[in-house]
This record gives sequence, structure tokens and C-alpha cells, in this order.
Amino acid sequence: MLLSRFRYELIKEEKHTHARLGRIYTPHGVIETPVFMPVGTQATVKAMTPEELKEIGAEIILSNTYHLYLRPGHELVKKAGGLHSFMHWDRPILTDSGGYQVFSLSDLREITQDGVYFKSYLDGSGHFIGPEKAMEIENALGADIIMCFDECAPYPAEWEYVKKSSDMTIEWAKRCKAGNSRPDEQALFGILQGGLYKDIRIENAKRMADLDFPGYSIGGLSVGEPKDLMLDAIETVENYMPKNKPRYLMGVGSPDLLIEGAIRGIDMFDCVLPTRIARNGTVLTSHGKLVVRNAQYAEDFTPLDSECDCYVCRNYTRAYIRHLFKAGEILAARLASYHNIYFLVKLMDKIREAIKEDELIEFKKEFFAKYGYEL
Amino acid sequence: MLLSRFRYELIKEEKHTHARLGRIYTPHGVIETPVFMPVGTQATVKAMTPEELKEIGAEIILSNTYHLYLRPGHELVKKAGGLHSFMHWDRPILTDSGGYQVFSLSDLREITQDGVYFKSYLDGSGHFIGPEKAMEIENALGADIIMCFDECAPYPAEWEYVKKSSDMTIEWAKRCKAGNSRPDEQALFGILQGGLYKDIRIENAKRMADLDFPGYSIGGLSVGEPKDLMLDAIETVENYMPKNKPRYLMGVGSPDLLIEGAIRGIDMFDCVLPTRIARNGTVLTSHGKLVVRNAQYAEDFTPLDSECDCYVCRNYTRAYIRHLFKAGEILAARLASYHNIYFLVKLMDKIREAIKEDELIEFKKEFFAKYGYEL
Repeated sequence: MLLSRFRYELIKEEKHTHARLGRIYTPHGVIETPVFMPVGTQATVKAMTPEELKEIGAEIILSNTYHLYLRPGHELVKKAGGLHSFMHWDRPILTDSGGYQVFSLSDLREITQDGVYFKSYLDGSGHFIGPEKAMEIENALGADIIMCFDECAPYPAEWEYVKKSSDMTIEWAKRCKAGNSRPDEQALFGILQGGLYKDIRIENAKRMADLDFPGYSIGGLSVGEPKDLMLDAIETVENYMPKNKPRYLMGVGSPDLLIEGAIRGIDMFDCVLPTRIARNGTVLTSHGKLVVRNAQYAEDFTPLDSECDCYVCRNYTRAYIRHLFKAGEILAARLASYHNIYFLVKLMDKIREAIKEDELIEFKKEFFAKYGYEL
Repeated sequence: MLLSRFRYELIKEEKHTHARLGRIYTPHGVIETPVFMPVGTQATVKAMTPEELKEIGAEIILSNTYHLYLRPGHELVKKAGGLHSFMHWDRPILTDSGGYQVFSLSDLREITQDGVYFKSYLDGSGHFIGPEKAMEIENALGADIIMCFDECAPYPAEWEYVKKSSDMTIEWAKRCKAGNSRPDEQALFGILQGGLYKDIRIENAKRMADLDFPGYSIGGLSVGEPKDLMLDAIETVENYMPKNKPRYLMGVGSPDLLIEGAIRGIDMFDCVLPTRIARNGTVLTSHGKLVVRNAQYAEDFTPLDSECDCYVCRNYTRAYIRHLFKAGEILAARLASYHNIYFLVKLMDKIREAIKEDELIEFKKEFFAKYGYEL
């Protein structure tokens, strides 16, 4: 039953960048990295079925502990046989710890060394989540990869605040490790914090590495900071992250950052971007974002992206999809979501191919030029 | 190219009822009757893809002329290559004439012998549709079966009003016949009117039969009248409808009325019911309607209908689907719509099987008893 244990295999490092080609083995299957993980916040990737995600080639999805804890409740999911069974998805799942949502979605909260008291965004009811509770919830949900409970400091924040928060996150990580009751089936990742302070980031990364988690994520980024500062922070901590373990950049999923992240040694990404912008009528194409709702596409009988071979681009026109958006039809969100996830999953295929050929920089240049990004 | 022409084949009549087994040949394929037609008002069956409808076994869908005329416009659909091409559905389509919607959705309207002046429900803009315009629109949309422009009298209505309206509908039917510019590709059906007045119904049906349309529908029912009066009206006109042509009961799709209609010689049905109630969290099951949103299903890990073998019932539980509804997820509407359409399409399969075996009355008794209908 070797396959059922968590393992990261480093296949190769790209010659000219820090990019890595790898493979993650989990109880529910193998993931080729670098990988993009579509987000299924409430035990469903919005507008999609599991079969469609498989057809697209998604190998792992992310689901949110905070949301599932509040509704339908982790005990109910456990009774259903765990999250895989509940939502009819038999490939790997990663759950976050709820930390990020507790801090970003709950207005009324009180942070102590024990954990966080907060009010539900659904009904205002009072709740408490700390490291032990987060593990209890994540163990009940049963994802293949689970995350430590952390504090994601806001941006901007004072050095003193970030330092204290980073130290507490390390203490919480130790308690999470002790609290994970299913370490053989659920790999617990540490989350690196430290805001945009280089010294805190380095100390935090070193101390986290000492805790010997099976994988690490970089948290506290993609919270409103400029892109170059985010990339600097990744470069700073990457030097201190174990090479034999997967590295996950949380909450990042725009095409440019998927490429920039891969170049800097990141193996895993997640973001609500493809499905969120889809529901608003925006799609990703080889030539940049396209707002298909716009009047200019009313009589455009070409596909969303003429270079795309997905189900949507093979069968529907911009004119039709625009009509669906104008008419408020559910199929609009379905088709745009399908295409956008496909676009990012295929982008990761191309990134892995470029790493294999040691041509990631060339690939970046070509992609950026066509997409309309500045180099 | 015989297959490309419209033709109705009467295969057999049931021994104990007026039910018929038949086949309709159209340019886009063959339809086994009696048939239920899912409704795709705005060029999409709400929440569904064409592939899913095929997987379910839907052989023909209905789309609404009134809605498509207003948005995206019939000229645009024509430019897209017609409705089949626009919406990516290569099986038969039936379009109504817009008459029903002009009368039911437009508050401000003026009826003359020419046609109807009305204001758009979208933006209040002024429009006119008469028999010739309806044909122009339906010819542009390009459905396999198209309907005459008619006035659907309200219920209740005075004898004098219904008589005048019925006479006008016959005059309009003649003008529609003259106006159909693609009779070889688009079969134009007459619509029988006459409200609940037996004498008007009979005279109307006779005069319509004389006009020799390739098919006929019964209009003006399912507008709020009691069920027994509706069934009486069907029995009244059925005697005067040509046996060698398909008979379509408009706007009817509840399980009991599909069976009662078939018993009375109806070949075609359409209704928004399965998709509309689905979006509100109600599903059809062998044991009657089930409001899956209800709290009692929170921890019910059985399928929507344990006797159903559809994609939804094979893979999801009531508890999960309830969660999706509570969370406002698009997948909720998708799964409930899929199941409900499947339920009605399979019901028609069973009705056809019962006709074949001359056991339709027995089938009705069993179905009604289990579903919870009064006999």
C-alpha cells in the first residue's frame, strides 16, 4: 500500500530557473506538479461537476474548512463518509485550515494564543477555532492534504504585529502537528508567514523547516501587495524551503503568477479566479482576458479562444455565450467556468512541458507577449 | 432525402384507451411518441447542456419565439445559422409562435385583426407581432416544427369573447400557412382554441382540420382551469383531430397529466415544470414530489429517488443536494434539473411501453398509487 502514503518525488529541476518538475502521491491518486488546484469552497467547484473537472484534467481540488465547518458542518460530512464521498470526487483534495477565512470573512473576532473567537458570516452565531479544533475539523473532512491553522496577517501591517503573528503561527503549527489524528492518510502542511518583512520570513521559514512537515505553503501573500513585492517574498523564503517537499503558493492563480511562481520553485497553486471571473462574464484567452458580456461580441460567431480545444470552444460561439449572460442563464456560468479552468489546467501542462525542455523562460516570454502582459 | 421531410407514422392504437404509439420524422431526426419536450425558453434548457439532454434521452426540445425575438433577436439567430447551430443542439426543435407570451407576459397590448401591439417585458419598447411576422421570426429561427400565431383566451372568459378569439385564430392560421416560407423544412402546426366551450371547441377543431396542417396542438388549456375540465376539453376535441397527424397538448407536463393526456390520444407535451421546480429545490420521485431543501433531508444519505438510475441518483445523496441548495450553489439547480427531466423522459418511455402492451390503464393505476395521486 505504498501508493496510499503521501510522498513527493522531485523529477527534475529546470536548468535556468528554480522551477521543478515533480509528482505528489496521495491516497486518492498522483498529482503532476506544478499543478493548479480549482477551488470548491462549499464542497463543489462552482457550476461544475466532478466529471467535468476530470475531463478537463484537474488532478486535485481545494475545499474550505471554514465554510464546511459552518455549513453543512464537519460532523455531517464525516457521517457521509468524508468529503470525497459527500461531494462525489475520488481524486485528491486539499483543505485549508479556515484561518484565512476566520480573519478575512469574520468582522467580529478575538485572537488569543488558544485560537480565534469569531461570529459566523451566515447567522452571526459565535464560534471558536484553534489549532486543535482545526485538526478535528480537517480530520473529519478527510482531505489528502490538510493545512495548519495560521494567522494570515493583513497587508500592510507593522513589523511588531507580523513578528508576533508569525511566532504564534509556529506555535500553532506545533499544536496542529500534535493534533493531526490521521497523519498516515492526511498529510499536514506547514504555512509560512512573515508578511513582507525579509528577516521575519527567513526566521519563520527556518523554524518551520525544523518542524519537518511533509509539505509547506507560503501564506500571507496575494493579500493586496504589489506583484514585485510578492515575487521578492517568494524568492526570499524559497531558499529556506526543503527541496524534497512540495511547495504551495496559496491563493494565487492569475496566468502571469502561475508562470512566475513556477519559475521561483512553486509546485502548487490555488485560486477562485477562473470560476469567479467566469460568473461575471470574463474569460481567459491566449490573447488575454475577454469580457464576453460586452456588446462587441453580440454577433461574434467565433469561439471564446480560437486556440483552445476545450468542450466550450469546440461547440459554442462568443455570440451565444454572450446571449446566455445577458439572459441570466445558468449555462453561461457553466461554459465560462469550464473554459477558464481548462485554460489554467492546460497552462500548467505547458509549464511542465517547458520545464522538461528547460525552456521555461522562453515560454514565459512568448506567453506574456501574446497574452498582453508586460515582461 | 425522404427522412428530411416531416411525416407522422401511427404505429398502433392502444386497445382500451385512445392512446397512440407513433413516430415523427423531422429534418433533425426521429421522435418516438408520446413524447415530453423539455423547454429551452431562451435557447437553452435551463442549467443543462445539449449533451446532458441527449444522455437523458430527450428527442426534441421547445424554444420560445417571443423570448428569442426580443433577445438576442431572430435575425441574429439566423446569422448564426439558425437555432440548432446557435445553441449547439442537432436534434429536433419546436418553436411556439409567441402568441401565448404576448398575451401572458405583456401587460400593455392591443389586439387587432392584424396582430398584437405590445411592450417588451425587457425594456418596455414597442413591438408588433401578427401571423406574418410570427412566420418571419419562426422561419428565421429554423425549428423543425413551428406553431401558428394564435390568441390564447384567458380563463375564465365569456362565450362571446372566446368565440371571436377562436374565429380570429382560424383567420390567423390561414395567414400563417400562407406566410410559412419554408414548409418543406419547417412543419407548421395549427393550434386549436375555444376555451372550455364545447360548441366553440368542436367548430374550431373542424375548421382547423379543414386547413390540413401537418400537425395540431390543443391550446388554451393549462391556464388555471380545474383538471377535470381540461380533460373534458381534450376528449371533446380529440374526436375531431385527424388520426394521421400528431397531437400536441401545450404547456402540460405534470406526471398525472402526461398519463391522462396519453390516454386521451395526445402525442406531444411540453412544460417548464421539471426545470422550474428543480431550481426551487423540488424533485420528482416514484413516490411523489420531494422538497429536497427541507431540513428533514439534512442527513439523508440516500439518492433523490431510490428507484431512479440517472446520473444524479447514482452519484449524489439528498444530504449533499440539500447542502448545495442551502449554499446557493449552481450545481444544485443542475442536479435537480437533470433528475427531473430524466424522470419525465423515463415516464414517457414507460407510457410508450404500456401502450405497446395495451396496459396503459394498469400502468396509470400503479403509477398513481405509488406517486400519491388520487385515482
